[in-house]
Amino acid sequence: MKLATLKNGTRDGQLVVVAKDLSSYVTAGSVCPTLQAAIDDWEATSPKLQAIYDDLNAGKLADVKPFEENACESPLPRAYQWADGSAYVNHVELVRKARNAELPDSFWTDPLMYQGGSDSFIGPREDIELASEDYGIDFEAEVAVITDDTPMAVSAEKAADHIKLLMLVNDVSLRGLIPAELAKGFGFFQSKPSSAFSPVAITPDELGESWKDGKVHLPMLATLNGEAFGKAECGVDMTFDFPTIVAHAAKTRPLGAGAIIGSGTISNKMNDGPGKPISEGGVGYSCIAEIRMIETIEHGAPKTSFMKFGDTIRIEMNDKNGQSIFGAIDQKVVQYSA
Amino acid sequence: MKLATLKNGTRDGQLVVVAKDLSSYVTAGSVCPTLQAAIDDWEATSPKLQAIYDDLNAGKLADVKPFEENACESPLPRAYQWADGSAYVNHVELVRKARNAELPDSFWTDPLMYQGGSDSFIGPREDIELASEDYGIDFEAEVAVITDDTPMAVSAEKAADHIKLLMLVNDVSLRGLIPAELAKGFGFFQSKPSSAFSPVAITPDELGESWKDGKVHLPMLATLNGEAFGKAECGVDMTFDFPTIVAHAAKTRPLGAGAIIGSGTISNKMNDGPGKPISEGGVGYSCIAEIRMIETIEHGAPKTSFMKFGDTIRIEMNDKNGQSIFGAIDQKVVQYSA
Repeated sequence: MKLATLKNGTRDGQLVVVAKDLSSYVTAGSVCPTLQAAIDDWEATSPKLQAIYDDLNAGKLADVKPFEENACESPLPRAYQWADGSAYVNHVELVRKARNAELPDSFWTDPLMYQGGSDSFIGPREDIELASEDYGIDFEAEVAVITDDTPMAVSAEKAADHIKLLMLVNDVSLRGLIPAELAKGFGFFQSKPSSAFSPVAITPDELGESWKDGKVHLPMLATLNGEAFGKAECGVDMTFDFPTIVAHAAKTRPLGAGAIIGSGTISNKMNDGPGKPISEGGVGYSCIAEIRMIETIEHGAPKTSFMKFGDTIRIEMNDKNGQSIFGAIDQKVVQYSA
Repeated sequence: MKLATLKNGTRDGQLVVVAKDLSSYVTAGSVCPTLQAAIDDWEATSPKLQAIYDDLNAGKLADVKPFEENACESPLPRAYQWADGSAYVNHVELVRKARNAELPDSFWTDPLMYQGGSDSFIGPREDIELASEDYGIDFEAEVAVITDDTPMAVSAEKAADHIKLLMLVNDVSLRGLIPAELAKGFGFFQSKPSSAFSPVAITPDELGESWKDGKVHLPMLATLNGEAFGKAECGVDMTFDFPTIVAHAAKTRPLGAGAIIGSGTISNKMNDGPGKPISEGGVGYSCIAEIRMIETIEHGAPKTSFMKFGDTIRIEMNDKNGQSIFGAIDQKVVQYSA
């Protein structure tokens, strides 16, 4: 099924059930008010939401309204947990290569993960407000899962059962702030401002055969300023599948219902050397940093600039018939003023 | 005023107003159900809660019940934001000194902060469940503030107005996991399991003159296995005051209402060399790591061991009359089994 959260003037919005083709919705108010409330009691709420979804798709419901992606909050407008893995180790290897650093062997067996902030997500169609272009504003196109209550020290095998929903993410990153912040040793903080999520969250069964082995087997479409920038295959080169990164997150503590765990930037390794832009026949990139790394490796310096005020980024995933699955994250970078 | 959250079988517990002397409470249900709901609408709720508090202390209320710290959740049993500064740079300097690393000058002007996980706090009297003693189990006694909605890029001066409540924290830390995790470059994750907070959250005015210049001017009492272990002065050697660390947290994103921002381990610099245990006339320590660092600096190796299963830690703060202000965090480390 497909769920979304409409803006309604409250902090957590209004949970709605969205038709498979994203054309219409009905409120889920008869089941529960918010997505957090739904996932807090998923065993009880999900069959009721599924029944609404089935009736909606069968055309059996009254009070159906046109679905507008612009009216959406992120599915969880705020969450109790947002942790982002870096499951595409190719991306990490490129970062290291661009600065002539070696990739430790352990990175292929022990997932990288950073603890994100989850109190102020931005909506999928809301502007990305930042004070300065000098921050090195970048997007990162990713997939994320939402779990129910997941016990401490869960195995990857059992973690799979706790994955209840999937979303797309724009993990906005401030490249100019990262080196100094990571050098301090405590990880990302100011360099990872508010993230945005796709208008719609879906249950894994919506992906059919494209959800397999704990991975999404479809391309991640990234469009920068109206031009195709990335179409990396999410199922390729994902070193750690979702159950593995969920288990990593839960190693020393339980995950509360509604925990969001991200894949990290989608990145495909090229067989014939560094990745190529879409215009040159490649799959392109899921963030600007990656093309800059390849430019640095090839030419000694990056050529592509980070995002400027007014630039737009669209992140979407289509099914095999070209139909948008999650709706699109579509955002403009604008200057923040207090 | 003083607020607490009682366990009631729900995820977010029942908000109650606690008497100044911690002897009794009344439910806050007539104002709002939970502390998150209160802070979400603080301008409206706080005067009503204050009125209840005043009446409770004046003995004007019926339905008053004895307050039991054992019945408490952490004031926010789960939160949308938990970020922990490291405002006592002396602590950081000792860490570095113990491993013969220099402290960058910037550490005295640019706060260190890590993004914590906030989906699964433990209660102030609940066991700390962990799978292995080999993790190097340690406590960290800290002060934390709770903010209301705080805009992006707020100044430290204005951030002060957003500090609405104060609590104590046990920022449980797994020292054995930290070096390898920090070496990966993404900061703490598995090495910072669930934190616990004091039974009671207070408004800053409860501290009277002991809340000054954005700092708490009282000693932090840490009792390990029933013996006095630390009484470091929170107002001494706090390089960055709370408004400064709140502003740091908000530099590139707003903080949502209910954001918890911690001070980091309380640590006092000794004028005459390394800090001394309380038994030798010193102020002791707010974590075990610190005495181990001093042992390493003095003797080449640590002598004090980290916490074992069955060990207890009590964290408390008394006013100048010896009266507990926040109630006590009092926890036992036990072995986790799935």
